[in-house]
Amino acid sequence: MPGASHENKPLLTHGQALELARSSPGSLRRVFTKMRGSELGHLFLACENDEKRRILLRYIPDDLRGDALLELPEALQEELLSSLHPHEIEAVVEHLDSDDATDILQAVDEDVANEVIGRLEPEDRREIEPLLVHDEESAGGLMQAELFKVRDDWPVSKVLKVLRRWGGEIDNLNHVYVVDDQDRLQGVLALQQLLFCKPGMPIMEIADTKFPRVHAGQDQEEVARIFNEYDVLALPVVDDKGVLAGRITADDILDVVEEEATEDMYRLAALSENDDLAEPATVTAWRRGIWLAVNLGTAILASMVIAQFEEAIARIVALAVLMPIVASMGGIAGTQTLTIIVRGIALGRVTFANARRVLIKEAIVGLMTGLCFAVIIGIIASLWFPEIGVKLGIIIGLAMIINLLAAGFSGALIPLTMRRLHIDPALASGTILTTVTDVVGFFAFLGLATIFLL
Amino acid sequence: MPGASHENKPLLTHGQALELARSSPGSLRRVFTKMRGSELGHLFLACENDEKRRILLRYIPDDLRGDALLELPEALQEELLSSLHPHEIEAVVEHLDSDDATDILQAVDEDVANEVIGRLEPEDRREIEPLLVHDEESAGGLMQAELFKVRDDWPVSKVLKVLRRWGGEIDNLNHVYVVDDQDRLQGVLALQQLLFCKPGMPIMEIADTKFPRVHAGQDQEEVARIFNEYDVLALPVVDDKGVLAGRITADDILDVVEEEATEDMYRLAALSENDDLAEPATVTAWRRGIWLAVNLGTAILASMVIAQFEEAIARIVALAVLMPIVASMGGIAGTQTLTIIVRGIALGRVTFANARRVLIKEAIVGLMTGLCFAVIIGIIASLWFPEIGVKLGIIIGLAMIINLLAAGFSGALIPLTMRRLHIDPALASGTILTTVTDVVGFFAFLGLATIFLL
Repeated sequence: MPGASHENKPLLTHGQALELARSSPGSLRRVFTKMRGSELGHLFLACENDEKRRILLRYIPDDLRGDALLELPEALQEELLSSLHPHEIEAVVEHLDSDDATDILQAVDEDVANEVIGRLEPEDRREIEPLLVHDEESAGGLMQAELFKVRDDWPVSKVLKVLRRWGGEIDNLNHVYVVDDQDRLQGVLALQQLLFCKPGMPIMEIADTKFPRVHAGQDQEEVARIFNEYDVLALPVVDDKGVLAGRITADDILDVVEEEATEDMYRLAALSENDDLAEPATVTAWRRGIWLAVNLGTAILASMVIAQFEEAIARIVALAVLMPIVASMGGIAGTQTLTIIVRGIALGRVTFANARRVLIKEAIVGLMTGLCFAVIIGIIASLWFPEIGVKLGIIIGLAMIINLLAAGFSGALIPLTMRRLHIDPALASGTILTTVTDVVGFFAFLGLATIFLL
Repeated sequence: MPGASHENKPLLTHGQALELARSSPGSLRRVFTKMRGSELGHLFLACENDEKRRILLRYIPDDLRGDALLELPEALQEELLSSLHPHEIEAVVEHLDSDDATDILQAVDEDVANEVIGRLEPEDRREIEPLLVHDEESAGGLMQAELFKVRDDWPVSKVLKVLRRWGGEIDNLNHVYVVDDQDRLQGVLALQQLLFCKPGMPIMEIADTKFPRVHAGQDQEEVARIFNEYDVLALPVVDDKGVLAGRITADDILDVVEEEATEDMYRLAALSENDDLAEPATVTAWRRGIWLAVNLGTAILASMVIAQFEEAIARIVALAVLMPIVASMGGIAGTQTLTIIVRGIALGRVTFANARRVLIKEAIVGLMTGLCFAVIIGIIASLWFPEIGVKLGIIIGLAMIINLLAAGFSGALIPLTMRRLHIDPALASGTILTTVTDVVGFFAFLGLATIFLL
């Protein structure tokens, strides 16, 4: 029986595929028809450059091209789509559900998109056009138009009749949506409920009028949170007037959750969210370089702090040896707090309601760890440089307390402040944070040393 | 119409709830019956300590307690469950689906779990007991026993008859699973398909025999990947003999995806995966302290490198001023690469098949950014310390190239090696990486300076 296990063994490697493209195009086409979109996506990602990807794209049948392209990061998707003619893109779009079709059309130039839309069957066009107006990262951008809706004055028997006639075209049907004469959502029922009731019963008697719904304009991160809170497999989407506009299924939310987590991780690591394994090294170097340049600026700032204490360092070189320890511990402790808060905000566990308590707790944790490591590093420093001894130990210990307290406090304050300013809390907060811990660390340690040792 | 918008406004705050618990317990109970599990979970998280949580727990009705507890991080869940008597836990378990009931039973002491199981109705016990043997992070640990299965020799009419009789008890029915006389999974069909066929048709004629499935022993991360690859809302779980053991729905996978992303983020930031906002500061300080101690060790290692060059620093203090810049840039660049690789491995985009290419690319990116920032920092250093001038600029430039190359290379090599050794690539790799970039950065800069400036 197939599909029983899931090994990372594709039917063929990208090298073999490219080889086949040259030697036996017919058999490559045949192999491709047996593959899933995700497998084809992996083949694309494995290719060394866009030229090779474009060659493979030629041999993928129309009904799989869309699925394969949708597996790719946006930049690659756009690149590959730009190599297709509008009539080819139309063939891709035709085989997709409306939400996926919309994603493809949003990835091509507007002129091309308009040409493709013009070529579509009127029925497909009617479904896709309203979806195109929504932001890609909103509920409207995620939803699909394919759903099964019935009127609120129908009896169960009529619902079943219409369902038998039209329901076959919809994947993952699951729910029946009940609307009024203005198309406003009135209730939702699970497909299975239809099996347990009498044919003459009015549909509104079994429909759930309190079933959760989302607004087309809601951010996808919030939509994901609602899926999580209600543990549902699909949610209806309504517009400002309550009119049923589409539905979102949980499989699309899986992508959202992964995407948002990746975005936060990347931002915390000073990466562009578009950074991608498959893009050429020059593009990657450029993207990373921008953030490295920001970091260079903050590192120079820290060095300028050190430069204020040149005299102290010249007289007591031990200060230069020890000073990175204070800065490094602050950086790590601050990053711990920052990560907890950023993730907590993303998962809805840190809100403005508990922000103050969170901030106080992190400051206390900073103080506690600061006290503990003050003792440890104080002893180590005293023993390492016995000619200065206990005095040096006390100074580095104090600096450690100050810096870990600053780390805990700013690790919480920075993302909370950004959130208040409606900026993504993950964005640049790592850079700001390490600037704080470097500057405070160097200043506290070298400053105390200047006062008490010189 | 309710549920239309999703504001973070709970029916009451935890302060109000605790107040009501004292002044008017009856009305608190009434309010609680109107809340969802997730809202109650947020109330628990907002409480300052376990004692207050235990007070609130008393007032939550049995049928909501489980849902509320399941919203909490494991440590809190265990703590609160330990305050309940076995008969109360039994009442909680009775109201849950088998997968959730299993999670609760796995969170209490074994003795208590056995006592609770002994008290359950035989039917519930039969469902739950087989689930308890599986690892919590495997497909078996995620699956629920509630599903609708039929025999492969039945006609559609019989399936419908049995469905009408028993199907009402199962949430999110969606699929009908077809098994043979040994209970081995033979095929799957969507509920809606039953509506479109003749009553006399044998069920196997419409069942999909190639529908994907997962093994009970498969890791949850892999299960999530299969959901993503097939875009399905539910998957059947089979044991080694192909016997249908349960099913997993996409809403449970949402939790898995979030959990795994959180785990990776935490590990990258040198955090314990159990670090939690709701635990007391002392516990958090202890958890963080362990990782900070590891970092202290590596920071001292870097300081020992600096100590080798005390003489150089004493003679040219500019070295002490500039050396953190080289180390910091290496740390940031390495973290960029590390994050890309760790996330790539988690999402299945970095595999052993493309590992070599990824490693080479990251090294090239490191070299490119190294060259670029070598020029920038070289010029800055020459102008900043004109008495040493161009020579200092060349030295710091070379050190920058060496360190960013090392950062790119080790940022990719460390997680790939850990993966090869079957260790989580995110675990401790940040600490190892910054050790490398600190040591290489200080050694390259101070070493070159010693050779060419002294």
